[in-house]
Amino acid sequence: MPQNRTPLMDAVQQVIKKNPISFHVPGHKHGQLFDGASLAFKQHLLQYDLTELNGLDDLHAPEAAIMESQQLLTKFYRTKASYYLVNGSTAGNLAMILATFREGDRVLVQRNCHKSVLNGLELVKANPVFIAPTYDETYGVPRGVNVRTVREVWKQYDDIKGIILTYPNYYGMIYELKDIIDFAHEQHVPVLVDEAHGPHFVLGSPFPKSALQLGGDIVVHSAHKMLPAMTMGSFLHINSDRVSKERIEHFLSILQTSSPSYPIMISLEWSRLYLEQYSLEDIEYTMNMVTTFTNEIKKMDGFDILLGDDPLKLLLRAEGYSGFELQAFLEDYGIYSELADPYHVLWIFPLLKKEHTYPLHRVIDVLARLPKKTMFKRRVNKFFIQQVTELAVPIHQQQLETGEWVPLKKAIGQIADGMIIPYPPGIPLLLRGERITEEIIVEIEQLLMEGCHFQGSINKQNGTIRIMKV
Amino acid sequence: MPQNRTPLMDAVQQVIKKNPISFHVPGHKHGQLFDGASLAFKQHLLQYDLTELNGLDDLHAPEAAIMESQQLLTKFYRTKASYYLVNGSTAGNLAMILATFREGDRVLVQRNCHKSVLNGLELVKANPVFIAPTYDETYGVPRGVNVRTVREVWKQYDDIKGIILTYPNYYGMIYELKDIIDFAHEQHVPVLVDEAHGPHFVLGSPFPKSALQLGGDIVVHSAHKMLPAMTMGSFLHINSDRVSKERIEHFLSILQTSSPSYPIMISLEWSRLYLEQYSLEDIEYTMNMVTTFTNEIKKMDGFDILLGDDPLKLLLRAEGYSGFELQAFLEDYGIYSELADPYHVLWIFPLLKKEHTYPLHRVIDVLARLPKKTMFKRRVNKFFIQQVTELAVPIHQQQLETGEWVPLKKAIGQIADGMIIPYPPGIPLLLRGERITEEIIVEIEQLLMEGCHFQGSINKQNGTIRIMKV
Repeated sequence: MPQNRTPLMDAVQQVIKKNPISFHVPGHKHGQLFDGASLAFKQHLLQYDLTELNGLDDLHAPEAAIMESQQLLTKFYRTKASYYLVNGSTAGNLAMILATFREGDRVLVQRNCHKSVLNGLELVKANPVFIAPTYDETYGVPRGVNVRTVREVWKQYDDIKGIILTYPNYYGMIYELKDIIDFAHEQHVPVLVDEAHGPHFVLGSPFPKSALQLGGDIVVHSAHKMLPAMTMGSFLHINSDRVSKERIEHFLSILQTSSPSYPIMISLEWSRLYLEQYSLEDIEYTMNMVTTFTNEIKKMDGFDILLGDDPLKLLLRAEGYSGFELQAFLEDYGIYSELADPYHVLWIFPLLKKEHTYPLHRVIDVLARLPKKTMFKRRVNKFFIQQVTELAVPIHQQQLETGEWVPLKKAIGQIADGMIIPYPPGIPLLLRGERITEEIIVEIEQLLMEGCHFQGSINKQNGTIRIMKV
Repeated sequence: MPQNRTPLMDAVQQVIKKNPISFHVPGHKHGQLFDGASLAFKQHLLQYDLTELNGLDDLHAPEAAIMESQQLLTKFYRTKASYYLVNGSTAGNLAMILATFREGDRVLVQRNCHKSVLNGLELVKANPVFIAPTYDETYGVPRGVNVRTVREVWKQYDDIKGIILTYPNYYGMIYELKDIIDFAHEQHVPVLVDEAHGPHFVLGSPFPKSALQLGGDIVVHSAHKMLPAMTMGSFLHINSDRVSKERIEHFLSILQTSSPSYPIMISLEWSRLYLEQYSLEDIEYTMNMVTTFTNEIKKMDGFDILLGDDPLKLLLRAEGYSGFELQAFLEDYGIYSELADPYHVLWIFPLLKKEHTYPLHRVIDVLARLPKKTMFKRRVNKFFIQQVTELAVPIHQQQLETGEWVPLKKAIGQIADGMIIPYPPGIPLLLRGERITEEIIVEIEQLLMEGCHFQGSINKQNGTIRIMKV
């Protein structure tokens, strides 16, 4: 075996060598958006990797620079209190759930939530009721939640303590969040919003309204996804008095390292300043670039482009190619997408300023080289998940050591002993404790065949999943 | 108010401007130890801040570069399985506790543990019994745990499910860990070791034995503290079959962001390689440097030097100065200590290689300038905490909203509604749920007077702490 092995560094350097174009997170795009006042930070980043020295304050008990910096964030987003997160939106989602709910509480949860929401419900031992998202026929993806469904569920249960929603979805699509929030507030329960993909909505038109403006009680932002923050940098915002600031701070301090990274925190501060200074001309410049680019693609044969409600998200389909195949082709030319699904690749555009460039012409050149194929229309699976799901066993009941691995077909009718999560986008197809239907098994088989990457209790090699022994 | 405000970046740049000398974590020392093969990483760090692209694997379901990289770590430390952590040793401590214990389990815990251990016990709703550390008269600090005490506690309780220890302590001091582990294994319970400060013990002499060699069942390492990893980078090692790999992986995946930082993970890989290539000559070179340096200080009037069992940790006292005053003096000259306590400053030396230099002559020059003072001997507080402590109310019982803030003196006899933690070193002086004694209040007042920084339920401005309403 060769010495001096660094397989991870090598793998990353393989990507960098391609002079890659990023259509994915993080939002700083290889550091390009760290410029101006933050140039020295970029160039000498490891010198900024310090610790809680005198003068550098302490994220877990801020009273100086970090306090002031978070106050500027609070002011910018017009919230009651805003916090820097260094363990991603994962920490924010866990903390808001642990802070708001207690063991046994019934909570209404959008089924296509991020797995950290489910993990939070597990830790608190809550009693979730899942509501299925609406299904977007054009995009072939789950969209959001219907206020009508929420109202109906409310008739079935009289003890719902709150609602957890994801807005926008991974594809930048929105839904009638305001109606749901207004309804929840009439019922005197809070709405917690995982707005991971919407920290820039505060800029206003042409972006959708932010969950903060729409009245969400706690809102979590992945600053690293759409803003120029380093990966793992997020915000949590408290936006009302319906939730406990003390409890949120308590759980944030439990769930985040006692040695938070100064580079990540500084990149969060930079993200706020970046948005603050983002002008109408900058918006116009970026939108023009996106429009010119998409118009060029539309002129080409064999491609189909869909824009999300968030104009920085773009879905691309190519005739005869699955999303996974299209993604692989692009990567050979150093063009990296945010995700692929059976139909599309998803591209995320950066929030450029007018002094920035982006090599989109290279993308057009590469697309022109895609070998033409005869159209193959993948059947569009109607989204099969029932409207409202309760788990067959409590969410915190684990059989991690005793569960049994069985072939997919044999799992039908059994109870899942682990989540099955196509990743990205990280939305569970199967929840732990859920009864396994034939429709779900068919969908999993389909995704496996298409080369989708999974997290959770699935063994891709031998096609087995873990079920509970009852 | 001025525009473009970045108080946090400014604060860090203030430190950098001083051309600082680091005697603190992180172990890479402003990036100096990222050299050789990692030079490109340091210079273009933000280009390495990517996401789970094809080829870059996924920390939460590793099957390629990250799997291979973690296998090299496993091999190097000779463990059953070793993991990269990106949310600090905090995530490791929480995960090992959640994985090993269940609600109501009685667990023996070293009282001077890191707060993340207490937080883990809170999340799992365990039933901890705290044992007081032995007290080192020379250093004036808590040292470790006595196997005799452990044996005595075992006679009082017949249902202890495991032991959680911290080894070495913050000052690099060790204790009879092997005896305790052997005893615990005779009793068929696992020992979980927070070895945050000992990831380099694997190098052998002159460093103490590693908790891994001594038989600890799960061991957590803050790679960022003593190795050249970025802040938030840690290791968790599974070292026996007494603990559940599946449960540990489950909770690691809950407690760490779904978007882990590639720079942090790469710095962990670099740390392993750095240790692997650390030669006997390198050890000799670093030890010579430390010895020459300490000998020079010993020749100077008015200073007192204590070396920990770990020769990379050094405690410095100056006649007539508290540790806090000495720390402040040094910082004016850009010399940053790891921590100050009432007596000393603690310095951490880097693991230098023979091609590295370190500007220790500057330190000698600055020490020579310290104005001489008449000796003021701070009375040495005997460590007052009783040998064995059970909480007055369960560890997870929180009154974050209903607790009452009262002046220190009025809190005597009441139950604490929050931890009180001098930071660093982050060891709780008062536990939530603990009955408050007069001795504790006196110690808190003393530390407040001396300018110690606190985390937890204490208000330094008006001298109040939070008690539970009973």
